[in-house]
Amino acid sequence: MLVELTVKGFLDATAGSDPVPGGGSVSALNGAIAAALAEMVANLTIGKKKYEDKESLMRKIAAEAAELQAGFVKAIDEDSDAYNAVFEAFKLPKENDQEKSVRSDAIQAATKVAAQIPLQVARKAAGMMDLLAQVASEGNQNAITDACVAMMCARNAVLGAALNVRINLLSLKDESWSNSVRKEVQMLENLAIKKEQELLTKVHETL
Amino acid sequence: MLVELTVKGFLDATAGSDPVPGGGSVSALNGAIAAALAEMVANLTIGKKKYEDKESLMRKIAAEAAELQAGFVKAIDEDSDAYNAVFEAFKLPKENDQEKSVRSDAIQAATKVAAQIPLQVARKAAGMMDLLAQVASEGNQNAITDACVAMMCARNAVLGAALNVRINLLSLKDESWSNSVRKEVQMLENLAIKKEQELLTKVHETL
Repeated sequence: MLVELTVKGFLDATAGSDPVPGGGSVSALNGAIAAALAEMVANLTIGKKKYEDKESLMRKIAAEAAELQAGFVKAIDEDSDAYNAVFEAFKLPKENDQEKSVRSDAIQAATKVAAQIPLQVARKAAGMMDLLAQVASEGNQNAITDACVAMMCARNAVLGAALNVRINLLSLKDESWSNSVRKEVQMLENLAIKKEQELLTKVHETL
Repeated sequence: MLVELTVKGFLDATAGSDPVPGGGSVSALNGAIAAALAEMVANLTIGKKKYEDKESLMRKIAAEAAELQAGFVKAIDEDSDAYNAVFEAFKLPKENDQEKSVRSDAIQAATKVAAQIPLQVARKAAGMMDLLAQVASEGNQNAITDACVAMMCARNAVLGAALNVRINLLSLKDESWSNSVRKEVQMLENLAIKKEQELLTKVHETL
């Protein structure tokens, strides 16, 4: 698994001439980092006299964030695996019409999966942003910049995953599915930009 | 060193109740990821017939990106170390006026370093963005989304590090230094937002 590499090993695997891990896995990693930072801010709030009344909310946020992190961590590998499956499909034989047809169907099926994995990441990261806004406003204010960085990483998880969905849609023949996904992706992108901007604008006024 | 942790170990260290690694180290990590993705796109261009005329440019970009990555990797730890030094200064004794004065000076000195480390990260990440724009436009177009994700990570490295500079400036008494740094940080933030937007707008038109 990619997350079992050291951070330096992951960076070197990214930098190498293999297309994976690439932007797709990095987007999932950004989601995982955002969730980890949210959990930290909640943990830095729990047990503090000043935030006594937020204790149960922060425990709930910490637990949710841990669960979200686990989902993004899984997607780091899923994204690279999905890319490799497309690559394998392209290597299928194409000597005659039957082989060509089998190969084309395999490419289409693998490409659909390679769009679905980042689509899930984009949905999950966009869905996490209200929790991030909450931990930023209700959590320990000494950690406000950490909550902002979490929000920025979630924004990149959405926008980066969305780009990976979009590029895969380009080679899909199922136009009705592609069109509906493209609309959803556009909506998620707009939402991510808006939610991040709301928090950063608010915090910038105080810094 | 933090980069010797596994990715999962780094995420768990982030999520825990210790303030470090936090948003500062994550910002440096984002710079390292951006550099790694840039190196990958260059590597995916080198040796390709279609991009023969870009060969020497891409070799130069790959080498520069590797060097940049090394700098950001170092900053991942430096940021956490600088935070810990501030924390240690706060623990100095303050029983009498002399101790109070020594402690106050130590806090000021450590906080200045804790502003300088992310300032370097913000400068370096902003300075990397022209290289990222170049690898996006001249490099292998099959990896265009990877180049975009690199640019997005660089944008977050700048904005995240900038927030960490800003919050440390709040407790610095050296107003003339703070004011000049605040101006520079504002400039770096504006530049990062602009450069990312330029690339994303251009690529979105094709996806």
